[in-house]
Amino acid sequence: MAQPTTIADPYWSRTEHDWQAVDREDPVVWGDGSGSGFEYALPREQLKSFENEGFHHVDALLSEAEAAELLAEADRLAASVKGPSPGVVTEPQSDVVRSLFRVHRSNQKFRAVAHDRRLVDVARQLLGGEVYVHQSRINFKPAFDGREFFWHSDFETWHIEDGMPRMRAVSLSISLTDNNEFNGPLMVIPRSHQTYVRCVGATPENHFEQSLRRQEYGVPSREAMTQLVARGGILAPKGRPGSSLFFECNLMHGSAGNLSPFPRTNLFIVYNSLENACVDPFGDRPPRPDYLAEREIEPIVT
Amino acid sequence: MAQPTTIADPYWSRTEHDWQAVDREDPVVWGDGSGSGFEYALPREQLKSFENEGFHHVDALLSEAEAAELLAEADRLAASVKGPSPGVVTEPQSDVVRSLFRVHRSNQKFRAVAHDRRLVDVARQLLGGEVYVHQSRINFKPAFDGREFFWHSDFETWHIEDGMPRMRAVSLSISLTDNNEFNGPLMVIPRSHQTYVRCVGATPENHFEQSLRRQEYGVPSREAMTQLVARGGILAPKGRPGSSLFFECNLMHGSAGNLSPFPRTNLFIVYNSLENACVDPFGDRPPRPDYLAEREIEPIVT
Repeated sequence: MAQPTTIADPYWSRTEHDWQAVDREDPVVWGDGSGSGFEYALPREQLKSFENEGFHHVDALLSEAEAAELLAEADRLAASVKGPSPGVVTEPQSDVVRSLFRVHRSNQKFRAVAHDRRLVDVARQLLGGEVYVHQSRINFKPAFDGREFFWHSDFETWHIEDGMPRMRAVSLSISLTDNNEFNGPLMVIPRSHQTYVRCVGATPENHFEQSLRRQEYGVPSREAMTQLVARGGILAPKGRPGSSLFFECNLMHGSAGNLSPFPRTNLFIVYNSLENACVDPFGDRPPRPDYLAEREIEPIVT
Repeated sequence: MAQPTTIADPYWSRTEHDWQAVDREDPVVWGDGSGSGFEYALPREQLKSFENEGFHHVDALLSEAEAAELLAEADRLAASVKGPSPGVVTEPQSDVVRSLFRVHRSNQKFRAVAHDRRLVDVARQLLGGEVYVHQSRINFKPAFDGREFFWHSDFETWHIEDGMPRMRAVSLSISLTDNNEFNGPLMVIPRSHQTYVRCVGATPENHFEQSLRRQEYGVPSREAMTQLVARGGILAPKGRPGSSLFFECNLMHGSAGNLSPFPRTNLFIVYNSLENACVDPFGDRPPRPDYLAEREIEPIVT
């Protein structure tokens, strides 16, 4: 195999014909993890579990009433969409809204959640210091017609397409509806965050316009996924509105389609360390738009 | 609404612009259900449950060894497929085999299963007398790429497209692999067999060539499905190889896609009462091919 041109980058990807799986080079929990001074920091045992498994599920991070209010706001925002615009992604072959991006900047209610200490304190603890919102979005998986999302590591994309240097970010998925067995809940591969899977092939121009609907590049190989599942299995944490999943930025995840009559609406907020702000992408394409990868960094003050 | 032209047929469908849900006119269990003389007949309580819920799940109808042998045979058959031929259905947009039909006639091993008294006795008990195989198939839902199958009642299709007169047939799905939460197991709507949902619109010519890959006609409305699920919920019976599900021919069922590395391969056998053999279709199209709806009736002798 030819030597990759970006030899200094431990997380190169999409330059070779074959996939590779390598150990991550970064810690999972940055700093001492003590969380001292953070009211909502995870207790030691939960922190250890996050470190080992790559995720932490909370039954009621928000109350059901809070989740209901956010759901109403999310539905109001989706209903007010008037055709294509930046930050609005629709289902393949339809105008149904699949995702609304950057709601932490465009909407006061979602901004308030993103700055809530129940969330931010955990991010600060895990990432070892101050954080900002790298990305936020509402993911709608409509009843009957919500499509699947194939397995992927967010970090692989963020590194190659957005220029996130290290694995020092954490995602949070907050259920605004029930997430149950039948409406396409998030599935994760425990422990997969320990492994970086280099994907095959080059990234086409303006890839993001398609990839947010149906991923074709930055997709881990079937062989890699088979190995990761053989080691860690698959889990689909479920829960009531307000239940939440913190997951490490390199954890493999995906979700099946939604054939049920139950919509599945989740709020995603990605916290990144202030010391890990995006630089030029590590792939060979220009950076994606700001609504996908925040570049006007605003440290969170709580 | 205009009077339907096929007024004598209680199960008309696909002729109007609106959907309708009506009570079924046929018994679920035909005859006295005693099953006397049938060694493997269901005990009274299980029979009652089938009558009420529309299905009966068995943890180990076949042994794991029997299932493994059939799986090997199924994989051998799929690997021997050399391009399109009658009874071979591939995944949308690929050549991966999705279904192999009429295996009860083309293959000795599958013929033997279809004639096994553990299966046939239950069918005879439920249908009140002698039965034959209306349809058999192996459904492959390949790892990673197996597609979903939207909700449907088999009977609606068999009545309209194949000419099955009454609801006097029972399907049996035998797991040849594990059926788990992640590989797209069969989902059923308990009690939906009590309701006949008339579907919207006309059936296009040679519809079956597409419908076996992706259903577009004979699809129950979203509203109908919402009502049925509100009443009965959704269940996805799971199990080891050899576990099996008997389900009534009018029970709404479907399955999500398979994103997991675990293939899901099931053997389907449909038993129909000898007194319910297919006549001319109740829709306005010519009957579908024999591999979909047996017309050379061969009563089962055990």
